[in-house]
Amino acid sequence: MTIQVFGHKSPDTDSTGSPIAWAWYLSEVRGTPAEAKLLGQPNTEAAFVLERWKLDTPEIISDVAEGDAVVIVDTNNPAELPASINKADIQGIIDHHKLVGGLETKGPIEIRVEPLACTSTILYKMMGKDIARAPEGVKGAMLSCILSDTLGFRSPTTTQEDEAIAHALAKDLGVDIEAYTEEMLAAKSDVSEFSDAELLRMDSKEYTVEGVGLRVSVLETTSPKQILARKESLMGAMPGVAQEDGADEVLLFIVDILNEEATLLVPNDRVKTIAEKSFDATVEGDSVVLPGVMSRKKQIIPVLTM
Amino acid sequence: MTIQVFGHKSPDTDSTGSPIAWAWYLSEVRGTPAEAKLLGQPNTEAAFVLERWKLDTPEIISDVAEGDAVVIVDTNNPAELPASINKADIQGIIDHHKLVGGLETKGPIEIRVEPLACTSTILYKMMGKDIARAPEGVKGAMLSCILSDTLGFRSPTTTQEDEAIAHALAKDLGVDIEAYTEEMLAAKSDVSEFSDAELLRMDSKEYTVEGVGLRVSVLETTSPKQILARKESLMGAMPGVAQEDGADEVLLFIVDILNEEATLLVPNDRVKTIAEKSFDATVEGDSVVLPGVMSRKKQIIPVLTM
Repeated sequence: MTIQVFGHKSPDTDSTGSPIAWAWYLSEVRGTPAEAKLLGQPNTEAAFVLERWKLDTPEIISDVAEGDAVVIVDTNNPAELPASINKADIQGIIDHHKLVGGLETKGPIEIRVEPLACTSTILYKMMGKDIARAPEGVKGAMLSCILSDTLGFRSPTTTQEDEAIAHALAKDLGVDIEAYTEEMLAAKSDVSEFSDAELLRMDSKEYTVEGVGLRVSVLETTSPKQILARKESLMGAMPGVAQEDGADEVLLFIVDILNEEATLLVPNDRVKTIAEKSFDATVEGDSVVLPGVMSRKKQIIPVLTM
Repeated sequence: MTIQVFGHKSPDTDSTGSPIAWAWYLSEVRGTPAEAKLLGQPNTEAAFVLERWKLDTPEIISDVAEGDAVVIVDTNNPAELPASINKADIQGIIDHHKLVGGLETKGPIEIRVEPLACTSTILYKMMGKDIARAPEGVKGAMLSCILSDTLGFRSPTTTQEDEAIAHALAKDLGVDIEAYTEEMLAAKSDVSEFSDAELLRMDSKEYTVEGVGLRVSVLETTSPKQILARKESLMGAMPGVAQEDGADEVLLFIVDILNEEATLLVPNDRVKTIAEKSFDATVEGDSVVLPGVMSRKKQIIPVLTM
């Protein structure tokens, strides 16, 4: 049975590129046939990466069947995975997020989680010398994953290992890291074709804080003005998105990558309270700038309170 | 803060030796002070190993405090860990069991699970070349863990990696694997000083099968006669142990290591049904021999039904 390798339901570059890289490794090095899948439309950056490295867009699947052989990368959170995930035959989990609990396996399997910025950094370490056998597209995908997750080494999640491995891949591929990162970020920042609801869900994770369900959405961009110009209609779309997704509030953080700050939209008093208590900020009006905030994982989720 | 490294609540050789080995590695190689702990009295085999390799018996702790830095080895099951485990600062999990779910971490941490027979095999791989720096006691503990978990390579859980690494350690230490395994198994088989209730809890894990709580206990021995002579009083102690531990039934499998078979005690009709349905066996009287059954993980848990 072909192993299905996939990331989470909002495929960014890491959740698109890492399945491609690991499916290659499983198939060509370990000799266990595997195929990358997506659990949703890749975002604009991921779509750019696929085209840049001439990679086929993996098939988009909506669920898995009982007994399907799967390897999960870039998440261990059942809420970000197909509804039937615990009925599948989970054969591996490779991730760099905190352990959420909720995934169960039938027997002992291969699990590798490391506190690094990017799944592909872990994959590179696991591949060892076999990385040399990888085709250019696989290496390019992995480099793109690291540059995406580290925002070109700007994110505080960046570790020495992420940076060293990205440099090794870039050297091997003859890629100028700065110029290429700029191209990727520009692709990510072009959100003109997305609806407000799509933007609110594009890079979003669900959390419960003190019994309140939060959709914590992040838009990393080099042109925050483009998004802030849509502030009113984005806030107008929040109640509908929250209701459809079974959440109480949508928190939208617009991360200005170049200025290294985030703007949180504040549509109502409850979000105002969350903003003030979590970030020790004073909110006036319908948004608040949070200097230095770049990472949901390191700087938003750990401090959320209300 | 010193990191506490521990295994599960019924410390066998792997849950005693692997914390010692990993605490050494964290302290001496990674430079993060760590100390091995035990969550209960080591079993007779583990006690023998500590003495044989001149290792101090780690301190026995009953719980952890909020914020304590801990690394968990040889389990990922909250039921086998201190009550306050999810309040601790879990910094690492290294294990070779199926993922149960239930552990949560505050941030991304180091997690390594592999489908190998023994935690120490994984530790050895993680240590890489640094194993050469380990003192004899650490290497001896790791070798003992592998020989214990594989029953001297007899258990079907044994992998090529377990075997190769045990041979490398034995060669390095100048240990005769067969003779040493025999000593360890003899130590484990001497259970004369334990009460019936202690025997039922010595190597025991809790599972729920179709809503029924089972304490699945295994006694691996080279002299099954010694235990079977106590059959009546062991069965007499089962209802009390089950009640005290909040289980419905105790399943005691006496694993005859040399003859590679298990005897399951059958104190009542419900256990008889479990035995017959799970192992396709016909039960006559108060016990049943299950040829070839050596491993709870591979041959008991996956088939349990009622």
